[in-house]
Amino acid sequence: MTDEIRTTINRGLEAVNALSEPGPGWTRPSYSHLESEAHALIEAEVLALGLTVTRDAAGNLFARMAGRNPEATPLFIGSHLDTVSMGGAYDGPAGVIGALAMIRALVKGGITPCSDIVLTVTRAEESVWFPVSYIGSRAYLGLLTPADFEARRVDSGRTLAEHMADQGYSSDAVLNQTAPPPARFVEFHIEQGPILFTAGEAYGIVEAVRGGLRYRAAQVHGTWAHSGAAPREGRADAVVALSELVVAMNRVWDDMLVAGHDLTVTFGKLDAAGPAHAMAKVAGHAGFCIDLRSDDQATLDAADAAFKAEIARIEAATPGIKFDLGLQTRSKPERMSPEMAGWVTDGAARRGDSPRRMLSGGGHDAAAFATAGWDSVMVFIRNWDGSHCPEEGMDEADLAVAVEAVTLAVISEAA
Amino acid sequence: MTDEIRTTINRGLEAVNALSEPGPGWTRPSYSHLESEAHALIEAEVLALGLTVTRDAAGNLFARMAGRNPEATPLFIGSHLDTVSMGGAYDGPAGVIGALAMIRALVKGGITPCSDIVLTVTRAEESVWFPVSYIGSRAYLGLLTPADFEARRVDSGRTLAEHMADQGYSSDAVLNQTAPPPARFVEFHIEQGPILFTAGEAYGIVEAVRGGLRYRAAQVHGTWAHSGAAPREGRADAVVALSELVVAMNRVWDDMLVAGHDLTVTFGKLDAAGPAHAMAKVAGHAGFCIDLRSDDQATLDAADAAFKAEIARIEAATPGIKFDLGLQTRSKPERMSPEMAGWVTDGAARRGDSPRRMLSGGGHDAAAFATAGWDSVMVFIRNWDGSHCPEEGMDEADLAVAVEAVTLAVISEAA
Repeated sequence: MTDEIRTTINRGLEAVNALSEPGPGWTRPSYSHLESEAHALIEAEVLALGLTVTRDAAGNLFARMAGRNPEATPLFIGSHLDTVSMGGAYDGPAGVIGALAMIRALVKGGITPCSDIVLTVTRAEESVWFPVSYIGSRAYLGLLTPADFEARRVDSGRTLAEHMADQGYSSDAVLNQTAPPPARFVEFHIEQGPILFTAGEAYGIVEAVRGGLRYRAAQVHGTWAHSGAAPREGRADAVVALSELVVAMNRVWDDMLVAGHDLTVTFGKLDAAGPAHAMAKVAGHAGFCIDLRSDDQATLDAADAAFKAEIARIEAATPGIKFDLGLQTRSKPERMSPEMAGWVTDGAARRGDSPRRMLSGGGHDAAAFATAGWDSVMVFIRNWDGSHCPEEGMDEADLAVAVEAVTLAVISEAA
Repeated sequence: MTDEIRTTINRGLEAVNALSEPGPGWTRPSYSHLESEAHALIEAEVLALGLTVTRDAAGNLFARMAGRNPEATPLFIGSHLDTVSMGGAYDGPAGVIGALAMIRALVKGGITPCSDIVLTVTRAEESVWFPVSYIGSRAYLGLLTPADFEARRVDSGRTLAEHMADQGYSSDAVLNQTAPPPARFVEFHIEQGPILFTAGEAYGIVEAVRGGLRYRAAQVHGTWAHSGAAPREGRADAVVALSELVVAMNRVWDDMLVAGHDLTVTFGKLDAAGPAHAMAKVAGHAGFCIDLRSDDQATLDAADAAFKAEIARIEAATPGIKFDLGLQTRSKPERMSPEMAGWVTDGAARRGDSPRRMLSGGGHDAAAFATAGWDSVMVFIRNWDGSHCPEEGMDEADLAVAVEAVTLAVISEAA
């Protein structure tokens, strides 16, 4: 079984990652033809295994392996194939190929599982393209609203509905489809953080997914002036105001960690380098985004309140400075299923592993399934050199042992 | 005379500003065809007045009105016609059209000046395009080195020599031309600061031009990471490091002003919004520039030392953060000529004005002439709503009275 799993992982990741816009790294935008081609590649694999393939109205792919007991709650397992711009090789594909490797091992081993097992490949999980979280899975689960389809892709300026139509899917059909009955969901995913790597552990079990509170297109307005002629008094420098905000929020973050709250604070983009900016000009404008994440909704609200208080303080101190935060978007913190965590722990024990319980910093489809009342769990794979970047590292052997643990849980359930 | 001056200013500014890349504002890059067309427009004006036109090897335009006494030191008067990207209507053209208006008033008034008067239209004064100060005037004055012609335009990436060749000028010919004997130079220019506007004064006389110390293409390198998964400990966030530097230098600036030094500190560009930056990523890189200006070389050196000390402090506090400042460029602070300031003051007194003495925050061609040993002076015109921006404001009537003051100085000298 181990060899079968390793071979599938190696071959599958190579095939998916051959599909990308030019580098550095890997770029398969949400609802792009590259994402569609990656889905088609997985479809060919599961058809060859004899699975039944369906797609929902949003283009999510489901490949069903029939279980012995039609009454048993189905086990959905998978992840997504879209990436951020210039992202890594594993965020998304590791979960899809891990699930494929498990199902292939079951088929090749002649094992009929207890419940149906459904390889699940979602669409549009990476919210950097459209300012909406977990688009594909939430479309399937009946959690999108008509307004979500009007969200515009940050680079093209065209709506989600238009980009879906490009790939043959209809927002109206999504809104008209019936949400499925809650079942079980398992997602393999790289950790995207240093905890497992630092501890020297191959995989872990996620207890909760942090939620997010974001301002994706915030701005600060000041007054353009001459760099050498405008005195310090009277300047309204957008770059200075924004820098003060970044430093202040870094301090707020530290204070909230010291107070025992779970929180991350990230200004992923500062943009004061447009055609109107110059070496000899005091900046009259800057754009930025901020991403707050926590396992606790109240902490997100408190960090947002502190953010607005810092802005008010900076505006009051510098006449002419005015922040405009634009739209706020949120994703809810979600608890994973303790029962499913226990189920993975049992499978892990069968190969002598004791994976730790941990938090997920990134949002994932598993959180959307949890929101919809599914028994959802994630298995994190050790990774290094960051994530959402070309250097994103993972050892395929680590994914293989995690897949083996979950496969053993399925086999145990079938016995 | 007053009407003649006002009419020329109105017509001249309108004609020059009809030449621009599409807005907002006015864009005539250094050594662009638009700058060449603006020069041709002035040439036609002065030929119609009967002046003798020459161009030096760098394409600077000189239009000579013969004086009565060939032994008297010639009076060069003018400015430049290039602009920053999306700049204003007056930075440069006010000085050229002001000089044209004076010469036209003398010609129409039948006045023969004492010395030759030379309308001077320099090229490439705005150093935002090529990282070299006062290119045109320094080419004329024999102050450029072969290396200067290898400087690359920030947007095209092509060298100064190549862009000059596009407009028909040769860097070799510039290096081979003989520097002229020092004479007198007068430049009208908008203040580019709020001092005259705040004081309610139409014009002032510049005693010194601040020098600059710049890093035009500095960078900070950190480590890309996931915004929600990378803990605070262990992050090397380029955006946070750069923001700390901006805030620290803002504090250094305040301290140096309190200590009585003349200084401006400006980070005109922050660039952390490239294709690799995203809402969900800790920034692993940011670009920026910094512009320090002072009337005193020692103050610039002290501010540069403080800048490097702050960088060392930030690097030491955050493993993984590394600044790379790139090339440093400088322009020297220059004293204007007290004799020429007195000469303008006398002309002003003849119309009942007492213009203040003041500093120039911006660098100007007049500083290059002073460096070359010329008796150089500037006359600042009140302006508002900033400079180097489309909103840059100036009242043509203010320029007219300043032109009238200098014209009266010429007439007095001729008497």
